[in-house]
Amino acid sequence: MGIDLAETAIRGTFLDFIDDPWKHVGNEEAAVRFHADGLLVVEAGKIVDFGPYAEVAPKHPGVAITEIRDRIILPGFIDGHIHLPQTRVLGAYGEQLLPWLQKWVFPEEHKYADRAYAEEGTKHFFDNLLASGTTTAQTFTTGNLTCNEVFFEEATKRNMRMIGGLTGIDRHVPDYFANTPEQFYDDSKTLIEKFHGVGRNLYAITPRFGFGASNELLAACQKLKEEHPDLWINTHISENPAEIHGVLALHDDCHDYLGVYEKYDLVGPKFTGGHGVWLSNDEFRRLSDSGAAVSFCPSSNLYLGSGLFRLGKATDPEHRVLLNFGTDMGGGNRFSLLNTLEDAYKVGMLNNTILDGSIIPSDQDLAESERNKLSPFRAFYSLTRGGAESLYIDDLVGTFDIGKEADFVALDWTAGPPATAWHQSLLHDGGELTLEAASDLLFGIMMVSDERAVDETWVMGERAYKKA
Amino acid sequence: MGIDLAETAIRGTFLDFIDDPWKHVGNEEAAVRFHADGLLVVEAGKIVDFGPYAEVAPKHPGVAITEIRDRIILPGFIDGHIHLPQTRVLGAYGEQLLPWLQKWVFPEEHKYADRAYAEEGTKHFFDNLLASGTTTAQTFTTGNLTCNEVFFEEATKRNMRMIGGLTGIDRHVPDYFANTPEQFYDDSKTLIEKFHGVGRNLYAITPRFGFGASNELLAACQKLKEEHPDLWINTHISENPAEIHGVLALHDDCHDYLGVYEKYDLVGPKFTGGHGVWLSNDEFRRLSDSGAAVSFCPSSNLYLGSGLFRLGKATDPEHRVLLNFGTDMGGGNRFSLLNTLEDAYKVGMLNNTILDGSIIPSDQDLAESERNKLSPFRAFYSLTRGGAESLYIDDLVGTFDIGKEADFVALDWTAGPPATAWHQSLLHDGGELTLEAASDLLFGIMMVSDERAVDETWVMGERAYKKA
Repeated sequence: MGIDLAETAIRGTFLDFIDDPWKHVGNEEAAVRFHADGLLVVEAGKIVDFGPYAEVAPKHPGVAITEIRDRIILPGFIDGHIHLPQTRVLGAYGEQLLPWLQKWVFPEEHKYADRAYAEEGTKHFFDNLLASGTTTAQTFTTGNLTCNEVFFEEATKRNMRMIGGLTGIDRHVPDYFANTPEQFYDDSKTLIEKFHGVGRNLYAITPRFGFGASNELLAACQKLKEEHPDLWINTHISENPAEIHGVLALHDDCHDYLGVYEKYDLVGPKFTGGHGVWLSNDEFRRLSDSGAAVSFCPSSNLYLGSGLFRLGKATDPEHRVLLNFGTDMGGGNRFSLLNTLEDAYKVGMLNNTILDGSIIPSDQDLAESERNKLSPFRAFYSLTRGGAESLYIDDLVGTFDIGKEADFVALDWTAGPPATAWHQSLLHDGGELTLEAASDLLFGIMMVSDERAVDETWVMGERAYKKA
Repeated sequence: MGIDLAETAIRGTFLDFIDDPWKHVGNEEAAVRFHADGLLVVEAGKIVDFGPYAEVAPKHPGVAITEIRDRIILPGFIDGHIHLPQTRVLGAYGEQLLPWLQKWVFPEEHKYADRAYAEEGTKHFFDNLLASGTTTAQTFTTGNLTCNEVFFEEATKRNMRMIGGLTGIDRHVPDYFANTPEQFYDDSKTLIEKFHGVGRNLYAITPRFGFGASNELLAACQKLKEEHPDLWINTHISENPAEIHGVLALHDDCHDYLGVYEKYDLVGPKFTGGHGVWLSNDEFRRLSDSGAAVSFCPSSNLYLGSGLFRLGKATDPEHRVLLNFGTDMGGGNRFSLLNTLEDAYKVGMLNNTILDGSIIPSDQDLAESERNKLSPFRAFYSLTRGGAESLYIDDLVGTFDIGKEADFVALDWTAGPPATAWHQSLLHDGGELTLEAASDLLFGIMMVSDERAVDETWVMGERAYKKA
């Protein structure tokens, strides 16, 4: 895809975030920037001007304007945790984490050692991302070099801001699928040199999870991070109770799951641990102190029965943990982050009740209870600016600030299951959209609709997807 | 809609249930009837013959046959708990049960006192049911006569097997929306006489919930049931912890929520209590002994943060409770029972982990843990035969047995979000469908797709819906 070097502009209704809504309890609008009639000016894929149409347009006489009417335009969604080679196995029945991996996942992922199969699956993967409004994803691949080359080649071709890397596993895995620490190190080096920083690709050192990593594999990760301190680290943490018992049996010198990664100096900025369902209060505090992130994957946590992520604990202002949201497709059963928001809301509401004192009075914590409620602003912040901050790519994407890469999504609040338009007409029935109506419509999109609401997805200022 | 009195037939792949899959742990196929190439013969809206095409066709020479290819045909889905006048408020943000009722639900439901609005909403309601494959629904309305007349008139027009009734509330409700016990009794009588048993309509005495019912209102329900012992009783039970505290404060002579309904002799066959999230073991046992049913509404229980229904407890073979599944639209955020199955699976998987001993060893109950897993057979049994049995309408609908009313749905396993066809091709790639493949495809439909999989819905042997 070529980048248009001339200045172009998009006119429409824009909504992004200037702050974290969890910092503004009871007054979340303070975190939102909203232009009912806005103009976004793009040059060479980047945002060069943005604001109300009436203010911005006169500064760019003659600029070619694309009008996107009756849509809410948000920064492109960021998926913090997704598995490319599980695209086809999505929705396969049906176990908790560990048997599900053995029965369905490893056999399917192994097919991606074949270039033709990897290319077919990778094409489906990126097509689905764009149809879901997802423009950036931190992606697990496999431990196979070919699979990773195909991933980065396709990301380069699509010109998308992707994070990923060779996904290493050498314990609790069938022989046909196992890495060795040496091969993991060598192939990671090959990929780092070939792809990191090329196009929009970013490389993540990727030990699959503590349960599948020997000390030697983790030492190889540590060495890679020392040699390339600018790289990302992407892994899983504290997803399933049985998994945690297994991790502590394998790493019996560690007191908790986070300790395994800390032992190899992996925990800090640009580290993401997926899930974190069973993190202790102490682990939450250490993650907060270190600047590391957790990826909240509610669809997966429900689908695999892993448990309820403590969203209100992670967003404690005293010990705020950086968060991104992940589909965890195919541990999560939906490709669209809009469905992730639906399930995140549901997990949050269960926690809201658990902590309101109505079940067990001594468990009452009204502030934490409230923080579990995923308002639409908290939700879409998490997919955009919040996700970008957690991944330390907020200098590149996540808002409409000048200088950012022009990735965005246009949502149609009338699209979805039958009668969606009638539901939504209760909240907004014509006229210029207000911020309050936009908030209600966004909530309807996340709870009643799905990727059908994604009407257009733009990458670097170019339309990369339009719903048929 | 006229009923075709001549004999007609449908050829396709049929799946229904001859028993409860929970009775066949490890061997659920024993509960299933499956004809990869089947023929269903219909006359005057009822099934007059059914079986393998090769056996049945020769007995009906010259019968007009409609072929439905590449679909799985199931009995029409039964929604045990749904609120007609919440159709438009679906997806409104967002509280726990009690404030959500006050803020969103009562004002919207009140509009249905206006005939024109009620007709518009009721049309959307039935259109959505059919688009979701739902052919029978036990429906809450409002306490207003007009709303109920419109409901039964539309049900009659559509010739659908519906259960419903005037929905009474006289406590914890705004004055503009409150019934009096006398008006509730009188208007219920009017509706019973006018609509019960007319067409396919069945009447349910419907006190909204214990939290909203005075002793006098419940006494009116008791009187109606004594005068019309063949009627249904439909209400809510033990949905939300704060609600339960409120019920026991209002009815302080009762020890638990079920006791309130027992006091007025309402609990027995044809009684359904919606939700039952917080039922005690003793309440489960009393429900089981009485032949009453619970409606499991997982999407609602998650959306409103009510809690996790104990599916494995309700299906204890020692004290089996009759179950139907409900969308609880708009307490549930989706109209389609396929989404209900998705959330039921997720609730079940959380319980599966809670009871497997990996979190708290003393909570381990491996048999109950297993019963929480909603296999595809358990799932679709619950929407068809199981739902019919729980409502005591299994002599009318729920299977393809001869004599049943010919309500059915044809599912397209390739329809849904992008790449659905590619996922499903992993499980079935042409050729005659096997039962094992059908099971896997049905699971994909409930976890990855939604009402987009509903290709056709037939009512009394006539096609009432075809996806555009």
